[in-house]
Amino acid sequence: MPYFDSASAAPLHPVARQALQAALDEGWADPARLYREGRRARLLLDAAREAAAEAVGVRADELVFTPSGTHAVHTGVAGVLAGRRRVGGRLVVSAVEHSSVLHAAAAHEGRGGTVAEVPVDRSGAVTAAGYAAALEPGTALACLQSANHEVGTVQPVAEVAEVCAAAGVPLLVDAAQSLGWGPVEGAWSVLTGSAHKWGGPPGVGLLAVRKGVRFSPRGPADERESGRSPGFVNLPAVVAAAASLRAVRAEAGEEAARLRVLVDRIRRRVARLVPDVEVAGDPERRLPHLVTFSCLYVDGESLLHELDRAGFSVSSGSSCTSSTLTPSHVLRAMGVLSEGNVRVSLPPGTTAGEVNAFLEVLPGVVAGVREKLGAHSVPGAVPAAPPVADSVELDALGLRCPQPVIELARAIVTVPVGGTVTVVSDDEVARLDVPAWCAMRGHAYVGEAPREVGVAYTVRRLV
Amino acid sequence: MPYFDSASAAPLHPVARQALQAALDEGWADPARLYREGRRARLLLDAAREAAAEAVGVRADELVFTPSGTHAVHTGVAGVLAGRRRVGGRLVVSAVEHSSVLHAAAAHEGRGGTVAEVPVDRSGAVTAAGYAAALEPGTALACLQSANHEVGTVQPVAEVAEVCAAAGVPLLVDAAQSLGWGPVEGAWSVLTGSAHKWGGPPGVGLLAVRKGVRFSPRGPADERESGRSPGFVNLPAVVAAAASLRAVRAEAGEEAARLRVLVDRIRRRVARLVPDVEVAGDPERRLPHLVTFSCLYVDGESLLHELDRAGFSVSSGSSCTSSTLTPSHVLRAMGVLSEGNVRVSLPPGTTAGEVNAFLEVLPGVVAGVREKLGAHSVPGAVPAAPPVADSVELDALGLRCPQPVIELARAIVTVPVGGTVTVVSDDEVARLDVPAWCAMRGHAYVGEAPREVGVAYTVRRLV
Repeated sequence: MPYFDSASAAPLHPVARQALQAALDEGWADPARLYREGRRARLLLDAAREAAAEAVGVRADELVFTPSGTHAVHTGVAGVLAGRRRVGGRLVVSAVEHSSVLHAAAAHEGRGGTVAEVPVDRSGAVTAAGYAAALEPGTALACLQSANHEVGTVQPVAEVAEVCAAAGVPLLVDAAQSLGWGPVEGAWSVLTGSAHKWGGPPGVGLLAVRKGVRFSPRGPADERESGRSPGFVNLPAVVAAAASLRAVRAEAGEEAARLRVLVDRIRRRVARLVPDVEVAGDPERRLPHLVTFSCLYVDGESLLHELDRAGFSVSSGSSCTSSTLTPSHVLRAMGVLSEGNVRVSLPPGTTAGEVNAFLEVLPGVVAGVREKLGAHSVPGAVPAAPPVADSVELDALGLRCPQPVIELARAIVTVPVGGTVTVVSDDEVARLDVPAWCAMRGHAYVGEAPREVGVAYTVRRLV
Repeated sequence: MPYFDSASAAPLHPVARQALQAALDEGWADPARLYREGRRARLLLDAAREAAAEAVGVRADELVFTPSGTHAVHTGVAGVLAGRRRVGGRLVVSAVEHSSVLHAAAAHEGRGGTVAEVPVDRSGAVTAAGYAAALEPGTALACLQSANHEVGTVQPVAEVAEVCAAAGVPLLVDAAQSLGWGPVEGAWSVLTGSAHKWGGPPGVGLLAVRKGVRFSPRGPADERESGRSPGFVNLPAVVAAAASLRAVRAEAGEEAARLRVLVDRIRRRVARLVPDVEVAGDPERRLPHLVTFSCLYVDGESLLHELDRAGFSVSSGSSCTSSTLTPSHVLRAMGVLSEGNVRVSLPPGTTAGEVNAFLEVLPGVVAGVREKLGAHSVPGAVPAAPPVADSVELDALGLRCPQPVIELARAIVTVPVGGTVTVVSDDEVARLDVPAWCAMRGHAYVGEAPREVGVAYTVRRLV
């Protein structure tokens, strides 16, 4: 039963499991104590810190362990912002950061700070110029992920670090998705990571703060972990995290090359085998194991459900699969389709056979969901009827993704080339998916206008 | 090699280890995901929450898991203070709370709030009347531990909860030390706990907030754990924590009775076998497994070192064993001696033979440390010389605990009954230990006066 969601969580690496077992026996005591059990725990903690610091590329005294990657991000962002309060209250982030960064940014705004978002291109990448433009005076901190968690696009961290250094602004890199694949290049200032993303246990994050970065921990004091991470250190998990980081790094080169081929195969074949599909993210500058695509006229929840029934575990950035019923902010920032979205992230060890099985099943699953939605008859699946009017307005109020786009696709052939279709929808997702549909099908997106109820989205038929 | 510091950390309970193993296999996925691995994780999380909630005595939807007991305290204190901001900014805590509570209180003061400390008696206990007096208008929250972590004294939580309820103030109970022994009685509002104190794994704290308590989480938003504990939930550890809480509770009655007898033996025999010793804490209303005593004319660090060499792992509240070189705030609040302090906390399964071996070794270890310090010749160990002056002043500047008290003990016999000895010391610990010595030896503590360098502490000889 292939599990293709390693970007969410991965089973424990065998090395992590061994290390955890051993550390449960040897490392349960308080490493701050002076007796033998405490000294033994201290030795394990010091060794784990050395190993993790080496993998990250910092000195051991620049790295602390936190209870999760989210804690590392929250602590790192708040600590630098507080340490550089006198410089100003401006925080710069990319539009496609992980929610932990965006939530930390929102909390900063809630405390009176300001936040600027650097946009991305259609592949999900920022540019160094985009950061340079955003680094106004008064900027306390800039944040950039090493690679995107939803579409896999690798960010130009070293270049952005250079423009940050030139502006005298520290750069925090959220390396959660890439740390298992290798160190993050460039002169960044702060780095965060999450062990359970690289096959380590849950309960361990990394926070590295390079010497010279002004850092002022917030919240109640605690003498542990250099005052940067309160609470009894989760030593068995820390030992397992460090051991597994070493182990996955040793295997990373070979495994990355292998998975890169499999992901290339998915990118190519999905585009060929599934009609009306958009494969997202940079095809070259990307994580080796991750690919995302969106299928027109399909709702993500049904797609995930049917893939799960077929034995494949994947995730989705579609609105219908989120607790807030909003589409992924990453897809939105990229301006790509969000309906029928599937993210495939292959865990180490994934075989070509598993990927082939997925590619065999996928087209039928998509077709099945479309059929249930009545979307198998959208053009050009069936011959178009002759145009009936120059412009058409559709009432799609109350319809949820992907229905407004299905109605739009049906209506477009009822107007002549040059004619318009206006969809009135109260589904927030339409704002993203109607323009994305236009881009995919070669029509012109005219724009939106508010209505008393809902919003009118107008499309001009071009083909 | 007996380990007698279970109040700091305990080896993993066998049930916790089994549960952890199983949950590493079954519970590594994200419980928020809809595929089978995610659903399996969700089932495990729900079951663990039910079990923990039952053990605490709340509904499952009132309990969240945090990365540590410290996180539970920090989140609980900050959340209620923020939720009741409109009521006022006053926080009431006992003087003997765990440092996590006191650090949260200090952070509250740093944000402009006020903190009132409820004093304790010489046994370390608060009174309901003490809380009633402190609950002035504008009090947002009161905190009280269920039992003290250094001397074992059980606090009158139910009575304090009653006066809090009468004043309309929620009571947060830090139950870290007692939760393995049983639920906390009384109508408290918020409760915190720490799994590694009851034989669960590190990396898990509990935060229970009863319905109706105004609670407003601080810090960046996160949808997990009802918005009260950010970060990927450490599910294998959570499962192990819940399973081991059930297991230790099932054994608690029998084990408590057994350890209570052993601790009674330590309390009695230490007082008899070791000269100039003070056994601290309430002899009856106390945790079953914990006892603390202090030895005059001994430094805690040497004592711990020698006990470790003899094979016994204990902790100490003496200043010389703390990273800040200040004595335990608990002993200070109780007004008991802090020099030569030893805390013994017996893990489940401790045998009578291990305790007897400790009692056999202890008198010799104390005598040995005293001999090294030249304190074996303090009165009444040797016949006193005839008094030489009505009042004596000792320059103890630069001497560290326990030397100032050793000098005082030597000097007191050089003055007649009714005469005074003044010790000038720049060791902060003298402020606690000189009066404590007077109480132990039957002399009168006259008071202190500042000097240009250090402080003068004056004692009147009475016997």
